[in-house]
Amino acid sequence: MTELNSATSPNPDTLKVALLGCGNVGSQVARILLRDADSLAARTGARLELIGIAVRDLELARDPAIPAALFTDDARALVRSADLVIELLGGIEPARELIRSALEHGASVVSGNKALLAAEGPALYELADATGVQLSYEAAVAGAIPILRPIRDSLAGDKITRVLGIVNGTTNYILDQMDSTGADFESALAEAQRLGYAEADPTADVDGHDAAAKAAILASLSFHTRFALENVHCEGIRTISAADIEAARASGLVIKLLAIAEKVELDGAGQAGVNVRVHPTLLPREHPLASVRGAFNAVFVEAEYAGELMFYGQGAGGLATASAVLGDLVSAARRIVLGGPGRTETTKGSVPALGIDAVQTSYSIGLEVADQPGVLAKVAQIFAAHGVSIETMRQTIHPAAEATGSTARYAELRIVTHRAIESALAATVAQIRDLDVITSVTSVLRVEGV
Amino acid sequence: MTELNSATSPNPDTLKVALLGCGNVGSQVARILLRDADSLAARTGARLELIGIAVRDLELARDPAIPAALFTDDARALVRSADLVIELLGGIEPARELIRSALEHGASVVSGNKALLAAEGPALYELADATGVQLSYEAAVAGAIPILRPIRDSLAGDKITRVLGIVNGTTNYILDQMDSTGADFESALAEAQRLGYAEADPTADVDGHDAAAKAAILASLSFHTRFALENVHCEGIRTISAADIEAARASGLVIKLLAIAEKVELDGAGQAGVNVRVHPTLLPREHPLASVRGAFNAVFVEAEYAGELMFYGQGAGGLATASAVLGDLVSAARRIVLGGPGRTETTKGSVPALGIDAVQTSYSIGLEVADQPGVLAKVAQIFAAHGVSIETMRQTIHPAAEATGSTARYAELRIVTHRAIESALAATVAQIRDLDVITSVTSVLRVEGV
Repeated sequence: MTELNSATSPNPDTLKVALLGCGNVGSQVARILLRDADSLAARTGARLELIGIAVRDLELARDPAIPAALFTDDARALVRSADLVIELLGGIEPARELIRSALEHGASVVSGNKALLAAEGPALYELADATGVQLSYEAAVAGAIPILRPIRDSLAGDKITRVLGIVNGTTNYILDQMDSTGADFESALAEAQRLGYAEADPTADVDGHDAAAKAAILASLSFHTRFALENVHCEGIRTISAADIEAARASGLVIKLLAIAEKVELDGAGQAGVNVRVHPTLLPREHPLASVRGAFNAVFVEAEYAGELMFYGQGAGGLATASAVLGDLVSAARRIVLGGPGRTETTKGSVPALGIDAVQTSYSIGLEVADQPGVLAKVAQIFAAHGVSIETMRQTIHPAAEATGSTARYAELRIVTHRAIESALAATVAQIRDLDVITSVTSVLRVEGV
Repeated sequence: MTELNSATSPNPDTLKVALLGCGNVGSQVARILLRDADSLAARTGARLELIGIAVRDLELARDPAIPAALFTDDARALVRSADLVIELLGGIEPARELIRSALEHGASVVSGNKALLAAEGPALYELADATGVQLSYEAAVAGAIPILRPIRDSLAGDKITRVLGIVNGTTNYILDQMDSTGADFESALAEAQRLGYAEADPTADVDGHDAAAKAAILASLSFHTRFALENVHCEGIRTISAADIEAARASGLVIKLLAIAEKVELDGAGQAGVNVRVHPTLLPREHPLASVRGAFNAVFVEAEYAGELMFYGQGAGGLATASAVLGDLVSAARRIVLGGPGRTETTKGSVPALGIDAVQTSYSIGLEVADQPGVLAKVAQIFAAHGVSIETMRQTIHPAAEATGSTARYAELRIVTHRAIESALAATVAQIRDLDVITSVTSVLRVEGV
């Protein structure tokens, strides 16, 4: 480590770019590097020469617009001869090892690997700091939307208090379909799969894991503290029913899967913590995030001075994500051309990560109850006993379902609370579930933006 | 000029900050610099010491939260002893002279002065380039919204094709009021003045001059070419009537004052030009910009790879704008701490600025016509003669207005065209105006986002 930036001479005419991975995003990046070479050189001050593309299997058919001679299966050797490395492999290994190797020999790295950054980000940032090179990853969160750079640089003199993001296009498409067509989850998922918005195995998207990795990255940048995946409470959208969507609509709300990172005061003595969570969330229809339709992404940021900001755009897609990769690449390359060390992360703080129990928000609870006198009173009593204040309570009486032979009328209760602590709400719901007059708890959803 | 950056020693513990101007934004910047000194130092790597605030009149009452000893009326001397200069004076002189002095002696400058940057930007950027310091001005466009940095850095590897911005909160508030309450322009303006959204002399806002300066800055960054105020075609909102708003609503449209910068192919041979314009614009109600309410701002960016992006937030207000100033300040300060020259502008291109005549868009034309046979045919013929294709034509017959003694029925025509060249449309309208069956041309509005 005595020779930093050894790979790059000062004021180079040409910078050598290695691309790791050539999938949907990688092949677009390669095409643009080849096609726009002149305009990229004009903006960078040096030519960006694509010296090779590392792939796992050289036998696979590749994009005919990319010269076959560029492909190699020796990623390690490729990385060692590059000034700039673009990592689009995904997953932990060999991505981690290759990024470490690049940073150690003084190459700047652009990555779109949210899983790796959420899991191993801190160690990689430290390594980049130590070697004075740049590690950037705008493409890892919300695709084409410039969100990490604005949070890191534009809001550097402000204090972010909350981030609410629609950062997974698949689930937003599914929920939007359910909202606009009345479809249930299964058929909306099938439609999303048919259109290519959801994968054959949709787990990573619909169970919220993809959004959770992005939440960890957003939280780390927003609160200058390193949050890992295990700090993120994560719930997906499989449990959302057409009835939940309909009930939300009837109350002027919409259900979105949000990635949330929020600073909360702990004790009034200036101590603060951050909760990071992904879950289906009720939002008022007038909230700027409510009108984010289809597979689009958006991140809503609340800052002490700037107030409310929103960043909107395409969260996925090869070409759109390539735009974010190239923005990072040109920035890193300019830094090499102009001289000076890479931009480092400011994760100097250490705000504690809070568990879901400490979250304070409003809740909407759906109950199916026996239609008999005194039920409302019993339910209300339990809320009161746990200190959870009810804002609205609506009862709908359903007639006896003759077709099914059922003779008992039943009622549906929909309760919306004032802000309450999650642990108190959980205890309330547990006790209500045990009441003999309760047929079932049909849904418990958090409400934001009210 | 032999000693560049002479004011600043490498790796300084403290950086001296001079503030020029202490109005709405300036006093918030001063308060934050004083109050958040520790957290700003942690993010910057050096303390940001506010060494003085230059004001025109020392006798004026000032914010009691700011120590009186900081105020001075000798701006020139203050600038000479600073590492970082924040210019919030507005207007051309003495702001220009002071910024030049700062850049020449090696201080980085943060400015919120859109008028100066639109008029004199190119010369100032060149000076900053030459001395290797940073000139940043995020606060000059769309207040707290991080828009200039994303355009300059995040989209550096992409190609912007069009920018549509709601960049003036006053006019957006007025148009939003007219849309939601049916008020006419005069009463919506009076309401905006009562609430402090519009100034006593609202000219700069309602006639579009403020938006035009921002349009020039947005166009320069988006198309890597220097556009000045005289390249911007500018129309305000005084002519917008309640009837225009109502007609827009009936067609599922909304009227917004947009700043537009758009790249157009000139001849099919790869030659391109850019038109920069500010005018009231019809937008479909589903367009993301249509739901930007009240005094909020938003900038919608279309890029070849990223697709559609939108940036939304508060466009004005002391605290919100201070956030943008501080973001620039921390970035410039970090650059000094880390070493390396300031980020330079990439205005290396030279795409020609086009006049309004070359604009191609759709138009909505309102006509009051005599209710007699053959009028529609005459009107349609003139459109055809100029090669302007009609998309829709709607006629409303008004009964004779007995109250006013008028006995003639009259009709209203609302015509929406396909995309046409502005010069052809202008010639069409001029000829229609001369038809004897035309009582008046009530409105001609451009339509975007369809």
